[in-house]
Amino acid sequence: MSDKAHIGVTGLAVMGRNLARNLARNGHRVAVHNRHRERTDELLELFGSEGEFVPSYSLRELVDSLERPRRVVVMVKAGGPTDAVLEELVPLLDEQDIVVDAGNANFEDTRRREAELAERGVRFVGAGVSGGEEGALHGPSIMPGGASSAYRDLEPTLRSIAADVEGTPCVTHVGPDGAGHFVKMVHNGIEYADMQLIAETYDLLRGVLGHTPAQSAETFRSFDRGRLNSYLIGITAEVLDHTDERTGRPFVDVVLDQAEQKGTGRWTVQNALELASPVSGIAEAVFARSLSGNTELRAAGSGLPGPRGARTPEREQFVADVEQALYASKIVAYAQGFDQIRAGSHAYGWEIDLASVAAIWRGGCIIRAKFLDRIRAAYEQNPGLASLLADEDFRQALSGAQESWRRVVATAAEFGLPTPGISSALAYYDTLRAERLPAALVQGQRDYFGAHTYRRTDVDGVFHTEWAGDRSEHEA
Amino acid sequence: MSDKAHIGVTGLAVMGRNLARNLARNGHRVAVHNRHRERTDELLELFGSEGEFVPSYSLRELVDSLERPRRVVVMVKAGGPTDAVLEELVPLLDEQDIVVDAGNANFEDTRRREAELAERGVRFVGAGVSGGEEGALHGPSIMPGGASSAYRDLEPTLRSIAADVEGTPCVTHVGPDGAGHFVKMVHNGIEYADMQLIAETYDLLRGVLGHTPAQSAETFRSFDRGRLNSYLIGITAEVLDHTDERTGRPFVDVVLDQAEQKGTGRWTVQNALELASPVSGIAEAVFARSLSGNTELRAAGSGLPGPRGARTPEREQFVADVEQALYASKIVAYAQGFDQIRAGSHAYGWEIDLASVAAIWRGGCIIRAKFLDRIRAAYEQNPGLASLLADEDFRQALSGAQESWRRVVATAAEFGLPTPGISSALAYYDTLRAERLPAALVQGQRDYFGAHTYRRTDVDGVFHTEWAGDRSEHEA
Repeated sequence: MSDKAHIGVTGLAVMGRNLARNLARNGHRVAVHNRHRERTDELLELFGSEGEFVPSYSLRELVDSLERPRRVVVMVKAGGPTDAVLEELVPLLDEQDIVVDAGNANFEDTRRREAELAERGVRFVGAGVSGGEEGALHGPSIMPGGASSAYRDLEPTLRSIAADVEGTPCVTHVGPDGAGHFVKMVHNGIEYADMQLIAETYDLLRGVLGHTPAQSAETFRSFDRGRLNSYLIGITAEVLDHTDERTGRPFVDVVLDQAEQKGTGRWTVQNALELASPVSGIAEAVFARSLSGNTELRAAGSGLPGPRGARTPEREQFVADVEQALYASKIVAYAQGFDQIRAGSHAYGWEIDLASVAAIWRGGCIIRAKFLDRIRAAYEQNPGLASLLADEDFRQALSGAQESWRRVVATAAEFGLPTPGISSALAYYDTLRAERLPAALVQGQRDYFGAHTYRRTDVDGVFHTEWAGDRSEHEA
Repeated sequence: MSDKAHIGVTGLAVMGRNLARNLARNGHRVAVHNRHRERTDELLELFGSEGEFVPSYSLRELVDSLERPRRVVVMVKAGGPTDAVLEELVPLLDEQDIVVDAGNANFEDTRRREAELAERGVRFVGAGVSGGEEGALHGPSIMPGGASSAYRDLEPTLRSIAADVEGTPCVTHVGPDGAGHFVKMVHNGIEYADMQLIAETYDLLRGVLGHTPAQSAETFRSFDRGRLNSYLIGITAEVLDHTDERTGRPFVDVVLDQAEQKGTGRWTVQNALELASPVSGIAEAVFARSLSGNTELRAAGSGLPGPRGARTPEREQFVADVEQALYASKIVAYAQGFDQIRAGSHAYGWEIDLASVAAIWRGGCIIRAKFLDRIRAAYEQNPGLASLLADEDFRQALSGAQESWRRVVATAAEFGLPTPGISSALAYYDTLRAERLPAALVQGQRDYFGAHTYRRTDVDGVFHTEWAGDRSEHEA
């Protein structure tokens, strides 16, 4: 056996370091490199005993230490820093070598890079990696895109470090070029929506029932024992239950209420607009975050009046209603996200298997949840499913939830509590089930002011009415 | 006096033709050109008696027929066609000549073109023009961006053809380079939101009260006599009152309920995401249009159950409530749009005067409304206004509307009628006035799973809690 390392990792900030440790712990000899040698030395010093690390102090050294075809994982900041590393790294590589970009790249960049490297014979794999620091160390969900041959060469390694759900590793070949980073992007968009829904639920429990954070933690724990069981619900309970050591107050009450973001939610919505895929729940979540951090707008709204004398609903009923509303809204959020993946897969020619995507999200990643196994089952049963809302199981859940959901939206409005996510999800549900939409009026208006024409329900063709004239109709 | 024409127009489809006629009718000698000479001849034949037209059968002829500095209005399709015309036209021009792009260009393209032409000494003016065919002919709202010197040379001409509101022409120098097309883009985004709100109102009158389209037309006419007075409300009544000649049924009932779009709404939201300007109402409107036209998703939602036994509210009260909800939601839609203009002006260094923007939207354009004069007044009184929601007049209107607004949102949920626009606007209102937002929980979650850190309400600094460890807090 060669002394060469099986795989290399460059970029040893916490995510890269933990991925390298995960690889080493799983029996792979890992060459490690960082722009600043101190990072490399620190990794060896602190975790050198966890496995076989080969320290490298230049990309040339890193490349020389690898068996062929070489496998190099790049884990640096998305955008310029990634391009800078590739510019230096790629000339050192040979044909058939593989570069894995495990950062949060924009999938359009990944498509460009994959094409550029392919011209030199180097195989580029844009891999979404979710699960944060802990996931990177103990088993993330991995979403690699790129050539099938590259995936085949990486598969055993990736399977060994991925999260495991009942014996199935959370990794699959998502599709060509940018498919992996695309799916990771939508994963994050769904994560935004899911977190927003949970935040609204917490706000309702508090604003309507007067729950303390600790009481809400208890409620989320009870939700976590049911169909809402998920990582995010679990940590919500943990966060709500935490007491700030400095003040003795609930932790959530001392945190500044300005949510931040790193851009993948924004990308998701921008891309969805490009694809005409209606992801209103993700959009509301992204805007809710911007709004929370916009101190100027919040100051402008300060002192505006709220409702008076809203009647508090019966506690147990309301908690049950909120659970239904959260679950129904969550179905909508995931339906919207999977719709976007479907639309993207079609637009970019990726042939993404939605059941596999749901399957690898069951473990390792931030949105991991029992729920995802139901989504997997839905797409496995019917790979051509137009929407999760067409799946029989989810239809039943929504049917059972809708009356509660309506009460929750009404109650939120009556209490003056903002529920952009839950309300938007209900509007999506009611739009999809509507036999007729007032979009007909919009078409009439457009024809009136811009001669944009319209179609009819009864005969084929494109028509225009002479609104400024005798109001006769012509085929356009 | 020279025999030369004062201004030229190339691109004689309906918008270009009507602009040329508007110019000629107002005493300007207009050189006209179209790629296909038949269009030019047709214009002369049909409307030659309206003023002085100089037919040109090539761009060279067009350019040669103009007095200096030359003024050439380009009115062709945005994107490639505009670039194609510029590529041929610009080499024929001299320094100081002016090219006006009056199409619906993306403001980023306008910025690029302005910079490119500036290098050759040619002044490029990206001018948003709103008002449709009729506006182009009788007086549009014109939003020119570009160098001040170019605007000064065009101003008398533009003022002569623009819509007029109480003696003030609806044209102003919006700002440098892409500012004009940017403001036109946001105008269209607001238009989407406004139309969606009206459509939801119509749907509520029908679904809750059982109004016929003709009855709703009457209601909109009554709205049009009050503070909601606007072009869009007016044409809504016209469209709802129109009877289809083919079937004898209400026109709105025979129009296919799939709203179309041409992209400016999508651009608005994509840009707002870039600017972190929360335009949730515009986003909901864009998504509502996509959704209406997505037959696959609508088929997937078909048959999902709605509510049973919702109680019909008292008619007059509900109509009054709906008027309040529409007005309040409209304030939010415009507040979001003006916020985006403010953010864009800041980001791109344009120093746009918001009062002037509101002023030139009072006439000529699709969203013209009495209401815009109140917006003009608000910004004139306080140019630094952070949001329309901070203006005293609008605060009073919102205060008076909010209880009705809440009842409408609750009723829509109870009746199963989708009101994404009205609900989202209320959520925005309730978010802005909230003292505390559950964004604090989101920050806690982000710190938990991604060590993304948080700030505190009581002390400065950036913190992280060791969630997986002893839960102590460290300054990050």
